[in-house]
Amino acid sequence: MVELTPNPSYSLTLRFRLPNRAGMLAGVVGSIASVGGNLGQIDLVEQSRYTSIRDVTVDASSTEHAERIVQAVKALAEIELLEVYDRTFNLHRGGKIRIESRLPLKHQSDLAMAYTPGVGRICNAIAEDPNQVYNLTVKGNMVAIVTDGSAVLGLGNLGPEAALPVMEGKAMLFKEFAGIDAFPICLNTQDVDEIVETVKRIAPVFGGVNLEDIAAPRCFEIERRLRAETDIPIFHDDQHGTAIVTLAALINALRLVNKSLEDIRIVMNGAGAAGLAIARLLQKSGAQEIIICDSKGIISRDRDLQADKQAFAVDQGGSLADAMKGADVFIGVSVPGVLTVEMVDTMAEDAIVMAMANPIPEIQPELIESQVAVIATGRSDYANQINNVLAFPGIFRGALDCRASDLTVNMYIEAASAIASLVSPTQLNREYIVPSVFDERVATAVSAAVQRAAREEGVARN
Amino acid sequence: MVELTPNPSYSLTLRFRLPNRAGMLAGVVGSIASVGGNLGQIDLVEQSRYTSIRDVTVDASSTEHAERIVQAVKALAEIELLEVYDRTFNLHRGGKIRIESRLPLKHQSDLAMAYTPGVGRICNAIAEDPNQVYNLTVKGNMVAIVTDGSAVLGLGNLGPEAALPVMEGKAMLFKEFAGIDAFPICLNTQDVDEIVETVKRIAPVFGGVNLEDIAAPRCFEIERRLRAETDIPIFHDDQHGTAIVTLAALINALRLVNKSLEDIRIVMNGAGAAGLAIARLLQKSGAQEIIICDSKGIISRDRDLQADKQAFAVDQGGSLADAMKGADVFIGVSVPGVLTVEMVDTMAEDAIVMAMANPIPEIQPELIESQVAVIATGRSDYANQINNVLAFPGIFRGALDCRASDLTVNMYIEAASAIASLVSPTQLNREYIVPSVFDERVATAVSAAVQRAAREEGVARN
Repeated sequence: MVELTPNPSYSLTLRFRLPNRAGMLAGVVGSIASVGGNLGQIDLVEQSRYTSIRDVTVDASSTEHAERIVQAVKALAEIELLEVYDRTFNLHRGGKIRIESRLPLKHQSDLAMAYTPGVGRICNAIAEDPNQVYNLTVKGNMVAIVTDGSAVLGLGNLGPEAALPVMEGKAMLFKEFAGIDAFPICLNTQDVDEIVETVKRIAPVFGGVNLEDIAAPRCFEIERRLRAETDIPIFHDDQHGTAIVTLAALINALRLVNKSLEDIRIVMNGAGAAGLAIARLLQKSGAQEIIICDSKGIISRDRDLQADKQAFAVDQGGSLADAMKGADVFIGVSVPGVLTVEMVDTMAEDAIVMAMANPIPEIQPELIESQVAVIATGRSDYANQINNVLAFPGIFRGALDCRASDLTVNMYIEAASAIASLVSPTQLNREYIVPSVFDERVATAVSAAVQRAAREEGVARN
Repeated sequence: MVELTPNPSYSLTLRFRLPNRAGMLAGVVGSIASVGGNLGQIDLVEQSRYTSIRDVTVDASSTEHAERIVQAVKALAEIELLEVYDRTFNLHRGGKIRIESRLPLKHQSDLAMAYTPGVGRICNAIAEDPNQVYNLTVKGNMVAIVTDGSAVLGLGNLGPEAALPVMEGKAMLFKEFAGIDAFPICLNTQDVDEIVETVKRIAPVFGGVNLEDIAAPRCFEIERRLRAETDIPIFHDDQHGTAIVTLAALINALRLVNKSLEDIRIVMNGAGAAGLAIARLLQKSGAQEIIICDSKGIISRDRDLQADKQAFAVDQGGSLADAMKGADVFIGVSVPGVLTVEMVDTMAEDAIVMAMANPIPEIQPELIESQVAVIATGRSDYANQINNVLAFPGIFRGALDCRASDLTVNMYIEAASAIASLVSPTQLNREYIVPSVFDERVATAVSAAVQRAAREEGVARN
């Protein structure tokens, strides 16, 4: 297995007691460094005349690596390891989101207005004019994050409970990046009809639905049916979020190497939800040559294919290595390590590699840095992170604000173009093809683009 | 129709400009008082040499009454009414709850721990040990407030959207009184099978389910089936919340008049969800004589009855007036105004009247103040409010904290006894038979009682 660089997902805090003598802390720090731990904050917790207690935060690259770091510290003479906190586990205790009142409830009069009997007047007002539910309740700013747990991150079919931490994280992102209230719905079913009917039944509370981590091809039908059978925007983030940000990054990467979408050869590895959605959006944006590979190689007409894949079948079959020869762009939404240095060697001049398998990319960026013009991944600890958070908060902000009844391909293309435009020509370079997820202009720009497109297409109701 | 006393559910703020002369404000205040408006806060907004702008908050008793107050102010010479805010409507704009992050998301390392790639470790931990979902997600503190909108307050079958303001208010109460995160689920179906299967499908996220405003008899079967088919506590608040607080109030009212539950004649008007649940809990607590009336009169054996009502049928039929003769206790969970002063006149000495129809009671307390020993209502603007908020927050706090797999009648009886015990013998009087909803001891006492009962009955899993 490829060893990753140390990163905060395996962040430990070690608390230890050490004698107050010159060189003792240096010894601890040195031993952590010698096994490859990445040192962060060092805090003094307590100091007496003879001993100190210190907390040292260390990033590791895996659970095994974390264990080696702990063992290295334990092996030191005169150092007493008191505690090891796993920071990622610790911050998850009790969950990551909470429900809060927007109003105080300290007096009888607060209760009488927010609850009975006053609330009855609001209920009657909505019963008389159903549109008022958007003004007088949470619906206008509330999104359901719906999953069946069938394709959790890159980890597979873990079920609804194990998917919940991801959905909570998503809800945090909705709030942080667009001020949207979002709530996780983890469904105890993986049947298309049941998922569709359940979402329709809970729809009254929600102004939009974000589908998440639902396996292909089921996700396509669920999205199609919910779009047809509800009047609120439905967005499958793994498809369209990824596609929008990929298109934004590709627009800028191509600017950098002076190539045009119409002329290039694109190889896509991965024909799941994200892969097919990216291919469709690139095609709608003008891409002419897209070769898609799945685990069996190039998707070609001689193969027995699902309907969704058939649309992209080419005449000539072969392996991923065959497809890569002369390719201008590699887009990976597949599994760790499938792209080799040798395959990258056969790409065209000024190659662009977007290796987005999560959490471990199709190829480690370190291995091909000098060979290609641009590398992007799905990870936050490398440059050029293709992160859906650049798209979905602004998409929903725009859709909710104009009360869109639907989301369309043009809205997606406009959103991608808005994201790309935030990197100015003077800023654009091989390590900066998409704005930072913390760039505060992003959600506003995407929201504005989405609303403009919604009005042009007549789906805005507000 | 009975005119209520002015109350905060019809609270207005009037903004007006008036000349800076002695007696001008007095004129406004006097005219509001002359049409029966209940004056609250008076604020000076702005003052120039010749004029002032003031905000006056006024409680009315109905929409029509509010309109009369506005007209009275408009009719005044030299007073310019600038704006009228309806405070209840204003505080509902945009809804009453929101979703918040429990953690900051300001740096890449925050994202890497709370979202990808770090969150993948948490997902795997839950997939390996499903019980971890209680420790590492919101589930352990999250309650679904589920309605089908079929019995919204006393207003009837208004549907799921119009029920949402009540569910949001309930979520506020869960947070305020027990620190519980609760989320409204308003279902677009009123079919028992569909409701049950939908709740089961969304159950992975929730540590408990509060059923709310679902009509009888459907609510009984929904509760029964969900208790049997899920492993989380299911609580139909309109039944059991009302029953617990009614029992608590009755325990103390009987103490006051020196009667015992075993010896009294209780007349219950209303055989819906609340009525039957109260009757069952009183029976389990020792009540021997309970006569239940519905809109057709006494529930007697000669009538054609639903199964749930049959259990309470008596030999002798008749009207509510017949039933009331000699009764010690009237409990109303029915409709406004059905109890007359004449009927109350026929009750036994030291009668207890609990008129809990919401928002307008079976009889206005003002009409019988001198005739009975104790009056209780469901309203916050009278003494002795029978408010479910005394029960459900502590019930769920206790159930979640001991991870109860079920809720039982003994847990309810213990909860009622805990609530009653918070009114000490020296405090007990005809206007104070239950603690205030703002009494901070209540949720803790109920939670402790529930956990104790859960351990005794073997349903505590923690």
